[in-house]
Amino acid sequence: MIAKTIKDICLGESSSFSKTITEADVVLFAGVTGDMNPVHMNDVYAKTSMFKNRICHGGLVSALFSTVLGTSLPGVGTIYLSQESKFIKPVYLNDTITATVEVIEIIESKNRVVLKTTATNQNGDVVITGQALVMPPR
Amino acid sequence: MIAKTIKDICLGESSSFSKTITEADVVLFAGVTGDMNPVHMNDVYAKTSMFKNRICHGGLVSALFSTVLGTSLPGVGTIYLSQESKFIKPVYLNDTITATVEVIEIIESKNRVVLKTTATNQNGDVVITGQALVMPPR
Amino acid sequence: MIAKTIKDICLGESSSFSKTITEADVVLFAGVTGDMNPVHMNDVYAKTSMFKNRICHGGLVSALFSTVLGTSLPGVGTIYLSQESKFIKPVYLNDTITATVEVIEIIESKNRVVLKTTATNQNGDVVITGQALVMPPR
Amino acid sequence: MIAKTIKDICLGESSSFSKTITEADVVLFAGVTGDMNPVHMNDVYAKTSMFKNRICHGGLVSALFSTVLGTSLPGVGTIYLSQESKFIKPVYLNDTITATVEVIEIIESKNRVVLKTTATNQNGDVVITGQALVMPPR
Repeated sequence: MIAKTIKDICLGESSSFSKTITEADVVLFAGVTGDMNPVHMNDVYAKTSMFKNRICHGGLVSALFSTVLGTSLPGVGTIYLSQESKFIKPVYLNDTITATVEVIEIIESKNRVVLKTTATNQNGDVVITGQALVMPPR
Repeated sequence: MIAKTIKDICLGESSSFSKTITEADVVLFAGVTGDMNPVHMNDVYAKTSMFKNRICHGGLVSALFSTVLGTSLPGVGTIYLSQESKFIKPVYLNDTITATVEVIEIIESKNRVVLKTTATNQNGDVVITGQALVMPPR
Repeated sequence: MIAKTIKDICLGESSSFSKTITEADVVLFAGVTGDMNPVHMNDVYAKTSMFKNRICHGGLVSALFSTVLGTSLPGVGTIYLSQESKFIKPVYLNDTITATVEVIEIIESKNRVVLKTTATNQNGDVVITGQALVMPPR
Repeated sequence: MIAKTIKDICLGESSSFSKTITEADVVLFAGVTGDMNPVHMNDVYAKTSMFKNRICHGGLVSALFSTVLGTSLPGVGTIYLSQESKFIKPVYLNDTITATVEVIEIIESKNRVVLKTTATNQNGDVVITGQALVMPPR
């Protein structure tokens, strides 16, 4: 288990997690969150929307940042204080997303780290930008 | 299906969605996102953490805002532009969370609405605060 | 419910269970076991692997033997003592697997039965071989 | 992503993964594998069995070895050739299992590694022993 204290963390350090987001993921996420928006769940509706196809829930994609923060950088024991996410482009079913977190500020006196959070698809297009504030494990 | 255009939306208007977040939700969310952080998945570890018990993924709880935005206020056809969330208190398994969105700014010229997003548990404790920026359906 | 005692079991007797293993099965199995190996979860990575496509978890496929042992031969009340499995060929998403168990040894004095365990895909290719040791119900 | 070639692997090296196995895990595993054995699914039946309570599927518990093999030791790109598992003690719902793999033989000429596989519960009781044969990534 990776668990980096603030002294183990360097400015500019980054870590990533990649996953294909499938129809099964979208169905399960909808069930768990109750978000049955037809743009995620209804092929016929989605074809009439500006996206032309069903898209993944933004909250599913942005949750991949938490996967990296809590298991890799800083790792186990991290306390997640806040997340800002801008949804730049739609994520379609079967897109493979890479969620990357990069350390952009270290506030040692308060045991806080700010990370830039970026999600890209298999074509390298940025789909989410944002930042996270965390307390690394002590 | 509810789908409010910007002309149908009033300042101060709000809408909510409530759901008990169960162990099954946490298991499914972990599988979908890959987030196997032991504070969510491991009873023995969680007892040693500052939370003293397994807690729900923050991204699961904040995803309830999207449920309200995309199905109720503004409703179907809404485009989710950004979300900021501060994780104030932990959410434990079997807590019942109410996610509320409240219109705090209407920018009619750009077809944008800003909503305050607040999640509370069954005791009325605020667990997440933040805000969302959306484009209502035209 | 089938529950065969050792006296009801014949050498050479066999039983099977068949199931299509879908993408949803793989997503759920990953969540339950924590096994997020990209060869199972990431289309882009899997294309670069020797398998050229995402494959199912071996443990998911070999678990089908337990389905047969515990519900059909010997059936309910069986105690599963051990399993050996050789993973011969990859199982791809949407393959239909038939798991067969065949009685190859009956040790009546100790109430133990040895079964050959074989999984084949829809083309008749053997994907797993091995054997199980069980105690039939009394 | 961890991916150790055979030259990076040392005799005696080990790695572990821990997870509480919950009722939701058992339900999902049953659905995925079709193993509806009442000792896993039926409280009333299970109380009459020698185990006195519902127990987890052995295949679910032994699948945790694959999690370690494919993501940590040797890591991504590992090819799983075989697994032998002896089911020593029952695993009950809400037990927290630690699956450990330990390198016991390195066959460099054939690019194969043999690992001892041991699962223990939260009390330190060994519930599964066995061994795995894998090809590390090249």
